[in-house]
Amino acid sequence: MTTYQLPPICILGLGLIGGSLMRDLHARGERVYGFTLHGARAARRDGFDVSDSMDEVLRRAEADGALIVVAVPMGAVASVLDQVALYAPSCDITDVVSVKNPVYDLIVERDMQARYVGGHPMAGTEFSGWNASHEGLFSSAAWAVTYDYAREGLADQHWAALFGTVCKLASVVGAEAVPVRVALHDEAVARVSHLPHVIAEALSLVGDRGGTLAQSLSAGSFRGATRVASTEPELVRNMCETNAESLVPVLDEFISLLQDARNSLDDDPASLSHLSEAGHRAHLRMAARKGARRESVSPVKISSRPVMRVHPGAPGWVDQLEQVESLGGRVEVF
Amino acid sequence: MTTYQLPPICILGLGLIGGSLMRDLHARGERVYGFTLHGARAARRDGFDVSDSMDEVLRRAEADGALIVVAVPMGAVASVLDQVALYAPSCDITDVVSVKNPVYDLIVERDMQARYVGGHPMAGTEFSGWNASHEGLFSSAAWAVTYDYAREGLADQHWAALFGTVCKLASVVGAEAVPVRVALHDEAVARVSHLPHVIAEALSLVGDRGGTLAQSLSAGSFRGATRVASTEPELVRNMCETNAESLVPVLDEFISLLQDARNSLDDDPASLSHLSEAGHRAHLRMAARKGARRESVSPVKISSRPVMRVHPGAPGWVDQLEQVESLGGRVEVF
Repeated sequence: MTTYQLPPICILGLGLIGGSLMRDLHARGERVYGFTLHGARAARRDGFDVSDSMDEVLRRAEADGALIVVAVPMGAVASVLDQVALYAPSCDITDVVSVKNPVYDLIVERDMQARYVGGHPMAGTEFSGWNASHEGLFSSAAWAVTYDYAREGLADQHWAALFGTVCKLASVVGAEAVPVRVALHDEAVARVSHLPHVIAEALSLVGDRGGTLAQSLSAGSFRGATRVASTEPELVRNMCETNAESLVPVLDEFISLLQDARNSLDDDPASLSHLSEAGHRAHLRMAARKGARRESVSPVKISSRPVMRVHPGAPGWVDQLEQVESLGGRVEVF
Repeated sequence: MTTYQLPPICILGLGLIGGSLMRDLHARGERVYGFTLHGARAARRDGFDVSDSMDEVLRRAEADGALIVVAVPMGAVASVLDQVALYAPSCDITDVVSVKNPVYDLIVERDMQARYVGGHPMAGTEFSGWNASHEGLFSSAAWAVTYDYAREGLADQHWAALFGTVCKLASVVGAEAVPVRVALHDEAVARVSHLPHVIAEALSLVGDRGGTLAQSLSAGSFRGATRVASTEPELVRNMCETNAESLVPVLDEFISLLQDARNSLDDDPASLSHLSEAGHRAHLRMAARKGARRESVSPVKISSRPVMRVHPGAPGWVDQLEQVESLGGRVEVF
């Protein structure tokens, strides 16, 4: 008799993230099936349980009490949730969309909060689509799990159990569940994900204007900062536009640092002392916090994220989540 | 009887670049020795011919007709050239400094143009010093080689031969000699090397301000764009400050692209369509030009840089260099 760690998982959208999640769950023997508009045939050929009929998949999810994972781009989330409301009215829902506020707004509009826990695995590559998906994508990645509903004091035991299941989903595929409220999530990813994407696009343009000579002389620093510019522009737009509220002030911060650097480089004598020293210190601080994880030579993988064991629904558990959140830590549910 | 491909090489300064050059030349059986202020003992312990006395090393170079490679930070180049003038007045000189105009000014001040060909290997890591140096650093890297003196019509056969030797030096360690005039070099590296360093510093600061939560959620895009912020701030300052004349207008270009993106993200509805599409196209153009080099699965390494075989000093050779330069191509000397 097989024991499963998770309920059946129904993934809607099998691009890089949804597809990789399906591969990992399948490889670990969990029950997983899904829907995709593009690439269903390729996925079936690869041996996966995939349909190109959304209502068929959702009826099946409803019948077997699956957890639904919304893995479509932000622009398609509203209509997918409408279908979930129609065909899978009692299923629990999570998602893997890269912004959390706009998704939560749609959840609230549909009064789905009691059966929704948001998620966002901080993993990806510059490629997209089913063909880019692969096992192991989430290994050691942070998987943001939102808990605003509990913070507002509204969560019952069902919701607490769902929170636990979503954390479990993350850990089954090798990721680390990081509890975070939607607003804090969106502000943080504006800094560390959406801003780097905007930078990659703008730097690619500046490099390209230097022609073949500049390109010929480009090396690691340029390559590292522009790699993600090969991401489909649609996906970049989607992430950045739907998180504009958080991204605009972060861009202002960044531009102001550059403007100061530009001015002190234009002084006589030219100076970059302030930025180079402050930036280096910031980098060292982050590297020190990151700690043993990357540098460890031990074969045992050590996470640099502080861990707290939490029992969802137990007294004080939401305060525990807030504490973990303030440290960027991870939860292990029991 | 051993045949050498190069004259004896005397490297002044054994940090990441100078040290790695020494290791590669040594491994290939060339005659190489050098001077370093810091780490001479460590280098000798590693089996290399290294002194901490600059005048001793320079007298030796003068005696055996060595090619001198100036591999100290920009700030130390003037005093090193003064010592070369004093103790090795007939040696030929090249350098590996990351800006070429300021070095050339010092060369002209000392009337050393007839025995100088500038160089700049586009290789490096975020680490520095002898202990970071290693074999293979220059493999497939562009090695900029300057030729202004010839473009001005002043080069004699001695200078032409020296140009050939510097190209040979690059190719012996696996790099590709890219001919470029100093002003064009400095403008190009401002785009593809110094700007990425400034970005890395500023982005590290913006990420760090997001605290441990932002750090915990950071992934590949952030890591790629901030990696070089671990470079010693002194080195970053040195590069950027000495190339401020080229870097300031490039920073203006970059800031203006970000400002436009910021404004269109602040519109209603928020849009990043212009930047994300233009940036992606620029990235694709560059990737297409880069061609087979990175993607090739062939065990034979194929360079994506167009090649021209040039005989330094032959009729029309300087026009050939200019043609190669306009393509960011490489020269093979014969």
